[in-house]
Amino acid sequence: MSRPVVEFWFEFASTYSYLAVMRIEKAAEAAGVDIAWKPFLLGPVFLALGWNDSPFNIYPPKGRYMWRDLERLCAREGLPFHRPSRFPRNGLLAARVALVGVDEGWVAPFARAVMTANFAEDREIAEPAVIEDVLATLGLPVAETMARAQAEPNKLALRCQTERAAELGLFGAPSFRVGEELFWGNDRLEDALDWARQARVGA
Amino acid sequence: MSRPVVEFWFEFASTYSYLAVMRIEKAAEAAGVDIAWKPFLLGPVFLALGWNDSPFNIYPPKGRYMWRDLERLCAREGLPFHRPSRFPRNGLLAARVALVGVDEGWVAPFARAVMTANFAEDREIAEPAVIEDVLATLGLPVAETMARAQAEPNKLALRCQTERAAELGLFGAPSFRVGEELFWGNDRLEDALDWARQARVGA
Repeated sequence: MSRPVVEFWFEFASTYSYLAVMRIEKAAEAAGVDIAWKPFLLGPVFLALGWNDSPFNIYPPKGRYMWRDLERLCAREGLPFHRPSRFPRNGLLAARVALVGVDEGWVAPFARAVMTANFAEDREIAEPAVIEDVLATLGLPVAETMARAQAEPNKLALRCQTERAAELGLFGAPSFRVGEELFWGNDRLEDALDWARQARVGA
Repeated sequence: MSRPVVEFWFEFASTYSYLAVMRIEKAAEAAGVDIAWKPFLLGPVFLALGWNDSPFNIYPPKGRYMWRDLERLCAREGLPFHRPSRFPRNGLLAARVALVGVDEGWVAPFARAVMTANFAEDREIAEPAVIEDVLATLGLPVAETMARAQAEPNKLALRCQTERAAELGLFGAPSFRVGEELFWGNDRLEDALDWARQARVGA
């Protein structure tokens, strides 16, 4: 019998995606659920909603709240947190590399390392040197992986995945999908895992 | 020793306030925490953020998600739910009456009855007849209470409370405050109660 699957849509610039990336593998393992990692870009999704920046920057009270909320949640989860000196950072390169990682099976540790660089170490994840450093630390072939990430077929694949996110009605990250059910936000990770398990039982 | 207190900021038009209103008394009692009920109006708060309607109407993907999310959450909580034929409804009159209820000690059952009228029975809570019916069902003096709710001092008190909400950095409902800590959303009720208990222990 195959295990139930939750699609995990995330963006490297997104603060609440940081929390979800760091804890999803352990939570999914405990629930007996597989994760399909779906890196995508929020920028085009936000543009379609009329936002040319993060809503946390456009609406200052939301932003002030989010940074404090994130600080509290990281403390509770035992996660390091250092407010990035730039927000949001451009997650395009990281997402392209992550897509290669999905294919090759190392997306989870790669995503955790990039999120840690952005939200705990205040490193500029838009810089190729930072991503290359992460790849090297994971023992992956740096030049080969970077080349594959920036080749046309992979760039197109990320564009398609981002368009698909908008088609599916996503409007933020992280988001989780189980069949046709959408769950939005790090707070809904457990609900999505539960839904996947119950769907399996009902099937 | 006095019990810790959580301020509960809510709006009768707000879908996630429905969930919080229905479950806060029981949750607070179990936690040994007192609730200070703070009815306010989201309209002026949203206007200050540049929204002249609910963000769930302005951003259709957010709205579609919210209605499905609410349906799932109501099912889980065992709460009745019928999507209102008008959204958002004008909660001004209900908030004025609720403010009288805060003073006289019956705000909790009144708020539950109005929320049920709006989100389970699809009744027009902006109509005086609906609010009067709720008051009568609770055994309260209808004419007297309506007169007090619509007298100048009470109208002014609600305006002040709404201005205070914006000053405190609120940008949505429900919101919870414990000392200087703000928690936004029905999902954060338990966190707010925990924070209040720990603050007491630490004091």
